[in-house]
Amino acid sequence: MAALKGSEIAEHNDAKSCWVIVHGKAYDVTEFLPEHPGGQKIILKYAGKDCTEEFEPIHPPDTLDKFLDKSKHLGPVDMGTVEQEVKEEDPEEAERLERVAQKPLLSQCYNLHDFEAVARRTMKKTAWGYYSSAADDEITMRENHSAYHRIWFRPRVLVDVENVDISTTMLGSKSSVPFYVTATALGKLGDPEGEVVLTRAAHKHGVIQMIPTLASCSFDEICDARKGEQVQWLQLYVNKDRKITQRIVQYAEERGCKALFITVDAPQLGRREKDMRSKFTDPGTNVQEGQETDNSQGAARAISSFIDPSLSWKDIPWFQSITKMPIIIKGVQRVEDVIKAVEAGCQGVVLSNHGGRQLEFARSGIEILAETMPVLRELGLENKIEIYIDGGVRRATDVLKAICLGAKGVGIGRPFLYAMSAYGQPGVERAMQLLKDEMEMNMRLLGCNKIEELNSSLLDTRALFTHSSTPPDHLFGSAYESLATPAQRPKSKL
Amino acid sequence: MAALKGSEIAEHNDAKSCWVIVHGKAYDVTEFLPEHPGGQKIILKYAGKDCTEEFEPIHPPDTLDKFLDKSKHLGPVDMGTVEQEVKEEDPEEAERLERVAQKPLLSQCYNLHDFEAVARRTMKKTAWGYYSSAADDEITMRENHSAYHRIWFRPRVLVDVENVDISTTMLGSKSSVPFYVTATALGKLGDPEGEVVLTRAAHKHGVIQMIPTLASCSFDEICDARKGEQVQWLQLYVNKDRKITQRIVQYAEERGCKALFITVDAPQLGRREKDMRSKFTDPGTNVQEGQETDNSQGAARAISSFIDPSLSWKDIPWFQSITKMPIIIKGVQRVEDVIKAVEAGCQGVVLSNHGGRQLEFARSGIEILAETMPVLRELGLENKIEIYIDGGVRRATDVLKAICLGAKGVGIGRPFLYAMSAYGQPGVERAMQLLKDEMEMNMRLLGCNKIEELNSSLLDTRALFTHSSTPPDHLFGSAYESLATPAQRPKSKL
Amino acid sequence: MAALKGSEIAEHNDAKSCWVIVHGKAYDVTEFLPEHPGGQKIILKYAGKDCTEEFEPIHPPDTLDKFLDKSKHLGPVDMGTVEQEVKEEDPEEAERLERVAQKPLLSQCYNLHDFEAVARRTMKKTAWGYYSSAADDEITMRENHSAYHRIWFRPRVLVDVENVDISTTMLGSKSSVPFYVTATALGKLGDPEGEVVLTRAAHKHGVIQMIPTLASCSFDEICDARKGEQVQWLQLYVNKDRKITQRIVQYAEERGCKALFITVDAPQLGRREKDMRSKFTDPGTNVQEGQETDNSQGAARAISSFIDPSLSWKDIPWFQSITKMPIIIKGVQRVEDVIKAVEAGCQGVVLSNHGGRQLEFARSGIEILAETMPVLRELGLENKIEIYIDGGVRRATDVLKAICLGAKGVGIGRPFLYAMSAYGQPGVERAMQLLKDEMEMNMRLLGCNKIEELNSSLLDTRALFTHSSTPPDHLFGSAYESLATPAQRPKSKL
Amino acid sequence: MAALKGSEIAEHNDAKSCWVIVHGKAYDVTEFLPEHPGGQKIILKYAGKDCTEEFEPIHPPDTLDKFLDKSKHLGPVDMGTVEQEVKEEDPEEAERLERVAQKPLLSQCYNLHDFEAVARRTMKKTAWGYYSSAADDEITMRENHSAYHRIWFRPRVLVDVENVDISTTMLGSKSSVPFYVTATALGKLGDPEGEVVLTRAAHKHGVIQMIPTLASCSFDEICDARKGEQVQWLQLYVNKDRKITQRIVQYAEERGCKALFITVDAPQLGRREKDMRSKFTDPGTNVQEGQETDNSQGAARAISSFIDPSLSWKDIPWFQSITKMPIIIKGVQRVEDVIKAVEAGCQGVVLSNHGGRQLEFARSGIEILAETMPVLRELGLENKIEIYIDGGVRRATDVLKAICLGAKGVGIGRPFLYAMSAYGQPGVERAMQLLKDEMEMNMRLLGCNKIEELNSSLLDTRALFTHSSTPPDHLFGSAYESLATPAQRPKSKL
Repeated sequence: MAALKGSEIAEHNDAKSCWVIVHGKAYDVTEFLPEHPGGQKIILKYAGKDCTEEFEPIHPPDTLDKFLDKSKHLGPVDMGTVEQEVKEEDPEEAERLERVAQKPLLSQCYNLHDFEAVARRTMKKTAWGYYSSAADDEITMRENHSAYHRIWFRPRVLVDVENVDISTTMLGSKSSVPFYVTATALGKLGDPEGEVVLTRAAHKHGVIQMIPTLASCSFDEICDARKGEQVQWLQLYVNKDRKITQRIVQYAEERGCKALFITVDAPQLGRREKDMRSKFTDPGTNVQEGQETDNSQGAARAISSFIDPSLSWKDIPWFQSITKMPIIIKGVQRVEDVIKAVEAGCQGVVLSNHGGRQLEFARSGIEILAETMPVLRELGLENKIEIYIDGGVRRATDVLKAICLGAKGVGIGRPFLYAMSAYGQPGVERAMQLLKDEMEMNMRLLGCNKIEELNSSLLDTRALFTHSSTPPDHLFGSAYESLATPAQRPKSKL
Repeated sequence: MAALKGSEIAEHNDAKSCWVIVHGKAYDVTEFLPEHPGGQKIILKYAGKDCTEEFEPIHPPDTLDKFLDKSKHLGPVDMGTVEQEVKEEDPEEAERLERVAQKPLLSQCYNLHDFEAVARRTMKKTAWGYYSSAADDEITMRENHSAYHRIWFRPRVLVDVENVDISTTMLGSKSSVPFYVTATALGKLGDPEGEVVLTRAAHKHGVIQMIPTLASCSFDEICDARKGEQVQWLQLYVNKDRKITQRIVQYAEERGCKALFITVDAPQLGRREKDMRSKFTDPGTNVQEGQETDNSQGAARAISSFIDPSLSWKDIPWFQSITKMPIIIKGVQRVEDVIKAVEAGCQGVVLSNHGGRQLEFARSGIEILAETMPVLRELGLENKIEIYIDGGVRRATDVLKAICLGAKGVGIGRPFLYAMSAYGQPGVERAMQLLKDEMEMNMRLLGCNKIEELNSSLLDTRALFTHSSTPPDHLFGSAYESLATPAQRPKSKL
Repeated sequence: MAALKGSEIAEHNDAKSCWVIVHGKAYDVTEFLPEHPGGQKIILKYAGKDCTEEFEPIHPPDTLDKFLDKSKHLGPVDMGTVEQEVKEEDPEEAERLERVAQKPLLSQCYNLHDFEAVARRTMKKTAWGYYSSAADDEITMRENHSAYHRIWFRPRVLVDVENVDISTTMLGSKSSVPFYVTATALGKLGDPEGEVVLTRAAHKHGVIQMIPTLASCSFDEICDARKGEQVQWLQLYVNKDRKITQRIVQYAEERGCKALFITVDAPQLGRREKDMRSKFTDPGTNVQEGQETDNSQGAARAISSFIDPSLSWKDIPWFQSITKMPIIIKGVQRVEDVIKAVEAGCQGVVLSNHGGRQLEFARSGIEILAETMPVLRELGLENKIEIYIDGGVRRATDVLKAICLGAKGVGIGRPFLYAMSAYGQPGVERAMQLLKDEMEMNMRLLGCNKIEELNSSLLDTRALFTHSSTPPDHLFGSAYESLATPAQRPKSKL
Repeated sequence: MAALKGSEIAEHNDAKSCWVIVHGKAYDVTEFLPEHPGGQKIILKYAGKDCTEEFEPIHPPDTLDKFLDKSKHLGPVDMGTVEQEVKEEDPEEAERLERVAQKPLLSQCYNLHDFEAVARRTMKKTAWGYYSSAADDEITMRENHSAYHRIWFRPRVLVDVENVDISTTMLGSKSSVPFYVTATALGKLGDPEGEVVLTRAAHKHGVIQMIPTLASCSFDEICDARKGEQVQWLQLYVNKDRKITQRIVQYAEERGCKALFITVDAPQLGRREKDMRSKFTDPGTNVQEGQETDNSQGAARAISSFIDPSLSWKDIPWFQSITKMPIIIKGVQRVEDVIKAVEAGCQGVVLSNHGGRQLEFARSGIEILAETMPVLRELGLENKIEIYIDGGVRRATDVLKAICLGAKGVGIGRPFLYAMSAYGQPGVERAMQLLKDEMEMNMRLLGCNKIEELNSSLLDTRALFTHSSTPPDHLFGSAYESLATPAQRPKSKL
C-alpha cells in the first residue's frame, strides 16, 4: 500500500468525511465521531490534519486498535507531504520554557511540596490544570492536607529505637512502606513515558502501585514494566457495559494484579474549574452566547463518559463471582458504608474524597478514619476489613497519623505525579526516598520500632472535627470589595 | 398644547417653583418636594433641568402617574431647546468603560462568584455600591457565605444515581429546582430593562420569582412578563397607610401571585456605608460641618421611608382577612419566632438576615435553620410550616446543605443581579444553568436521586455554631498600625 | 519687676542652676529636678530655654502654681530677647502636614473606625504613639474589639418599634445613651484645648463624662466647662500620699462630681512599646550601651510615678469615710473580685483591662461580663451592684451586646480621642451622633423599644470563650522567616 | 621544629594524604577522615589548605587535642607562606555587611522579638539557618509560641504589690528569676567567643545556665567563665560509648555542675530544611542526580552521629549509680512518661519538643504541662518531681503562664542566642533585663507578690487544647495556585 499524501488527507476535513493522522498513519473516523467520549468537536478541530500531539497523552497506544474497526485504518502517510502547521509564537510557552531551563536541581527538593512548586512552574498550563485542579472552590482539596494539621503527636521517649522497621503488609502483599502509589489518570501529561515511570520507581523502592483505568499507557505496558516480586493493584471505573468490565477485571487477574479497587465516588466525574479555565481559548469578540454549560469541561469529563452511574451495592456479588482478587471499595465517605462493605464481604475500603476532585465539602479521609475506627471496634469488626485512606498527604507525619488511627496504608497520588512531571523517574525516586527518610526518623522520634506499635494513644485528635478554620474561599474573597476608611482628598490645585 | 421650551423650564429652578423634565415631559414638583421619600435636596439638584437619567432606575415608570396630581403634569417639552449639560470628563468612568469593553466572555464564567467579579468591574460605582453593600463592617454578609463552609458532607456511595430529579414543590407550586429568585430592589441599576429580565430568565429555567415592592419596573410590567404556568410571589414592605398595602396585596392576588412574603426584618432600612461612600461627592474645600448624619444615606434609605416600623404579630390576622394567598414571614431570626409564626397560622417563614444588609451580627439563615428544625421536630411542628432561607448562596452545595437540614427552598438574590448586570438575560440564564448542573452532579455524588432523600444524616454540622473564625474586620484592621521590629538605621553620611 | 532677658536665662543651663521658660515666664527648677515625675533628663534638655511646647500638653496649667514654690517663679521674660531655636526641617513632619491638608471631610466619616484612620494619618507621631499604643504585642487591645465578634444576635421580629428610647440611668444619673466618655490622659496631645472639648461635646449629646486624673486641663477647667445638668464623674489614680488623694476626692465632690471611679488595674503603668519607639531619637553612632531599660519609656510612665502600688481592699472603707459619692472599682478582671466589691459595699465595678494597655492577655471586659453575670444571678447579687465595661467598642452593636449581657453602661475612650484629634469638637459630636443613630436603628432591628428590654436571650454567646483565633502576633510573625520552595536557578551565562 | 611552609602542606591535598591548617598549626587528618562525624567530604574541601574559619565555630578548641593522636600534630606553619585564597566577591555577603553597619541601636530593642529580627538581618546565612531552622514545615516551632496565646489571664486587683519578688528555687539552687538559659549548640556561630558570653551575662543577672554537650567552647572554658555562686547545669546527649558518657558526667559533677539534664527527644537529630537550604551551593549545571538524600543535611546532623538511639528507661539506674547530681529527663512529651520519670526516681523532667526541631506536630511544652499537672495532682505526685518546660517563650507573660500552671522554671534558648548574635554580651544582658522588667510589672498586674502565689486560678486555659488555628503551612500554601475569577480580555487591536 502506497503511503498516503498529506493533500489527500486534507480533503477529508469535516464531519461528512473526517480523516486524521496519528503517529504517521491515517484513520477514517467519520463514523466514530458521534461515539467519541470527548465529543466530536475536538476531533473536528484536527479533521484532515495530524493530531498526534493532542492524541498522545490522553489515549493509551492501543486505543485505535481496540476501538476503531480495522477497515478504517487507512495506512501509513508520507509525512514529508503533510503541511506543517506554523505555530504562532506563544509568549506564555516561551516563558514556561525559560522556567524549565532555570528549574532547581533535583537535590534542592527536600520534601513533596517542592516537587509541586517546581511542577507548577514547569508543566504545560493545560497539563497542570488537569493534575492540580479540584472541585468547586478547591476547599476540599486543601482541607485534605489541613486536616492532618489538627492532629498532634504524643510521642514516647526513652525507648530503644536503634532499629526501626517501616515495612508492612497490605492485602496479603509485603510492602517496604505503609504507603502506595494510588491511581491517577493521564500520566503522559506529566512525562512522555507515562505511568511506567511510576512503575519503575515503585519497583526500586518496594512500593505497591495501583494501575489506573484511565492511564495514558496501555494496561499491558504497565504490567510489562513490573519487575520481580513487584506488586500491582487494579483501580476500576465500572463500565456501563459489564462485559467490558468483566474482560478488564479478569485480564488484570491473569496478568497478576493482586487486588481490585472499585471506584465508587465518581458516578459522574467532577467539574474542575481550574482545568476548564486552563483550556479556555478565546473564540473571538462577537461570541456572546454561553448558556450551554456542557462544552469544554476539561480533560476529566472528556474521558469518563463510559462510567456507570447506576453501580450499586447489588453489583458487588457479581464482582465476587468473576474474580478471586480481594475487592476494595474506593471512595467510601461515612462509617455506615464501611459497615456495609464488611457485610458485603469486601476485603477493604479506601476512605477518600477522590483528592477533593468530586464532591466539594466531602470530608477528608483522615477525618472519616477517625470517625470509623471507634465504631468498628465497638462492633468488633476492626479485623474484618482493611482500611485505607488517601488525599492530602505531603509528609511522613501525615502517613504516621493515619497508621496510628488504624489505617493499613495510605495512598499518595498527585505528589508522585508532580515529582515525575518535574524530574521524571529520578524525581519520583527521590520523593519516595524523602518520605522513607522522614518516616524512619519520625518512627524513632515517636518511640516506635515497628508499624504495629503505632496506635491512637500516640495522638491528640481533639481538634480534628473542629472545622472552624476552613481553607479560604479565594473566589468569594476576590469578588468581595473590602471596606476602606476614607481616602485622602486630592491636593487643592490652588 | 404647544411643547414647552427648555428656557421656560429653566426659570423654575428652586424650591419656590421647581419644574423638572422626565422622559421628554415637564412636571411641576414644587408642592411635592417635602413629600419626596428621598428628600428634596436630590430633586432641587435638577430643578429646571432634565433628570431622566437619575430618575429612571429608582422609580417605576408609573410613579409620576400614581403620585403626582395630573394638574402638575405640564406636558411635552421640545427637547431640542433644552440645554445639554456638558459633562465633565470623568476619568473613573472612562476606565470603567474600558473595563466593560474588555470584560470576559460569558462562557468564561463558571460559577456565581465569577459574575460578581465581572459586575464589580463593570457596573457604575453607585449601582455597585447599592447592590453590594451591607450593614456596618459587612461581617454578616460574609458570614452568610462562610457559615456554609462549616458544614461538611457525609455522602452515601454505591447508590444507583443514573436518574436524578432536582424538582420540588414550594407552597403548592411546582419548581424545577429547590431555589428561587428572591426579591431585590432597583433592578434597573443593573440592566436598563430591570426586573423583567429576571422574569424571562426564570421562565426559561422553571424557577419561581419573588416580585419586590421596591422594583424599578412597575408591578404590572413584571406580571405581564410572566409566561405560561410561570409562578410569581409577592414580597411586601408594609406601608404605614394600610389601605395602600391592602390595594397592593389584593391586586397581586388578582394578577395571579401565588404567595405573600411579608418582610419583617426591616422596620428601618439599614445604613450601608459602602453605598454611602459610593455616593459621596466633594462639596468643596470650605465645608467642615458634618454633625448631621442623616443626609446622603444611599439609595436604600431614600426609597424606604414609607415602611411601617409599628408592624407586629397583631397585624397578621388582618393580612389573613384580606387575602387567600399563603402568608410567609420573611426575615425571621430565632426559633421562638418560627413557633410564633406557626401559632399565627402562617404557611411559611424565611430565615434570613436580609443579605446582611440590616442588623450586623444577625446570624446566617443556615445557622438559624440548624437551630430551628430540631426544635420543630421535638414539638411535632415540622410539617405545619414551610421553612425557607436565603443569604450567602453561591454554590449548589450551599443549596443542598439547606435542603438536607430541612429547608423547602433557598432564595438567591445578589448573584442573579450580578449576572444580569454583567451580561443581561443570558447571564442570568447561564447562572441558573450552572447551578442546575452543579446540583444534579452533587445529588449524584451525595448518593441521592430525589430532593426528598436529602436529610441531615448526610451532613456533619458539628462546627456550624463555632464562630471562632469570623470574617475579618477590614476597617478595624486598616485603622490599626501593626507593631514593627526596629528598622535599619540610615547609612552614615561620612 | 523688669522682664528677664533671654541671655540671662540661657546662663542657667545645667543641673547646678536650671531655669526654664513656660508661657513667657521664667522658673528656677534647680531644686525641683530630682522630684520631677518624668525624670530630670527631659527638663535638662530645655535648661536655659523655652520649653512651652513640650510642657503644654502633658501638664495641666495649674501645675507650676501647685508644685513649684512661689519663690522660684522668676517672673515675665522679654520674649523678643529669647533666641529662637531654628528647627531643622523634618521631612516626616512636612509629610504629616500635607496629610493634614488633604484629610477627608468630617462628613466622610461614617463610623468610629474612620476617625481612627484619619487621626493616625494626621496626628503627630509621638501623640499618636501615646494614644494608640498598648501592652506588649497589643494582642489584648485588639482582642477587646475581636471579642465582640464572637457574639451574635438573636433578634425578635414583628414587634412595634415605632418608638425607641435609648436613654438610661447610671449610678442614679440620667443619660441619653448607655455609653459614657471614659477617662483618658493627656487630651492636649490631641487638641490644644484638651479635655474640655470632650466636655462640650458630651453636653450637646447628653453623655456622661469621666474626668481623668491625668488630664492636660486642670480639674477646675473641666468642671467649669460643664453646663446645666451635665453629669461628670471622677476617675482616680490613688496617690502614695493619701492626703493628696483626700483633697482631690473631696474637692471633686464639692465641685459636683457624681461618682468616684478608683482605678485598680494600674499599680504600675504599663510599658507600651509603640509609644517608646515613637519617642526614640538616635543619640548618634557611637552609643552602644542599652542595658538600662528604664529610660525613655514613653509618656505613660513619665506621668505616673505617684501611683500607689500598695492600694488594697483594706483601703476601701477609708474612701467610704471621706466621700458620699458612689464608689466604683475600675479595672476588675475576674468574677471573684466583683463579689469582693459587693461585699466591700461598692456601688459598681468597671470590668476592664485598661484598653489593653496594662497586662497583656488580660481578658476583654465583654468576656469577663459574660463570666460574671450568671454567677451574680446565682448568688442573688445582680441588683446589688452596677456593672460597667470598657474596651474595644467601635459600633453600637458592641454597646448593645454589653447591655444585653447585663452591663449598665459602656465606657468609650480612644474613639472619642481620635475624633477630637482629627476634627476637634465637631468630630466628637459626629462620633456621638453616629453611635446614637446606629444604636436607635439596631434597637429597632433587635425588636426592642427600651434599654430594659435588652437581655441575654437576644444573644448567641457560645463562641465567646473560644480564643482559638487570637489576633496575630505581628512581631513574632515579622521576625519569622517563612519557608520557601526552591527558587529558580540563575540563567546560565553561556 | 621549623615552621612548615604553605607549599609543603598544599601537596597533601587529597584523601591519600590530607593535611589541614587550624589556627596556624598543621595536622595530618588522612587516617581520621573516615571517622569524622561530619563526613570526609567537608574536610577534603580544605585538604592542603587553612580551614580555621570553617573549623572554628563548630568544634570546641580542645577537639584536636582530644580526638587526634599527637603524632598527627605537625606543628606550626609559617602563615606568610600560605597562599591566601582570593574570595570571590559575594554580593549577598556585601549586603549583609551593609545591614550590619546599619543595624538598630541596642537601646532600640524593646523585647525578645526585636533581637531575632536584628539577628535575622545581620547573621551569616548559614549560621542563621542553623539557629532558626526547625523540623519539616516549622509548624511546631511556631505553635510553641502560639500556644501561649490561647491562655488568658484572670488577674486579681486591689492587692498590695508594692514589693514583688520574682526569685525562686530550682533543683535546690537559688535563681533570681524563674527562667534559665537552656542548652543550645554551636554558640560560636553567633559570637566568636561562643557560650562563655552567655555564662557572663547569666552571672550578671543571677540566671542559671545549662551547658550544652554540643557547645563551641570547651566544657572547661564554660565552667571557668563561671563566677561566684553562679549555678550551671549539664545538658547531656548520651554517647553510644557509655565510658565517654561516664567521663563527661563525672567530670561535670567534679567541676561543680548542679544537675544533669539527659536529652531524650533526639535519638536521631532532626532534618531541618531551612538549614539544609541555607547550605546549598550549586554544583553546576550538569548535575541531575539527587536520589541520595543523606548528604548536606545541615550542621545539626553533622555533629550528632555519636548519639545513642538505644537509650531507654533501663539506663536510668546506671546514671543514678555514677552521679549524685539530680537527674532530669529533658524532652518528655506525654503525662505517661512524666509518671515513669517519677517512678524511676528522677528529680525532674523538661516538657519540651526541642524547640520544634525534632518531631513535627509534637505538642508544645505548655500544652503538655496543662495535661500533666492535673494528673499528677490526682495521683498525689505533684511534689515528687520538678517540672520544667521550654520552647516558644518570648514574653514574661509566657513564663508567668507556665509558672501558674505548675512549672518550676522555663528554659529560654534561641532568644538569648539571637541577642548574642546581634549585640554580643550587652545584647544578652539587655534581653534578660527586659524579661525581668516585664516580669516584675506583670506580677504586679496579676496581683501577686511572690512566685509561690502564682496558680492556675489566675488563668483561663479553656482554649488551649483547641488546635483549630494552626500556624500556616507556607510550603503547601505557596505551592497551591489560588483560584482566580475570569481575567479581563486583552484590548482589541482594531
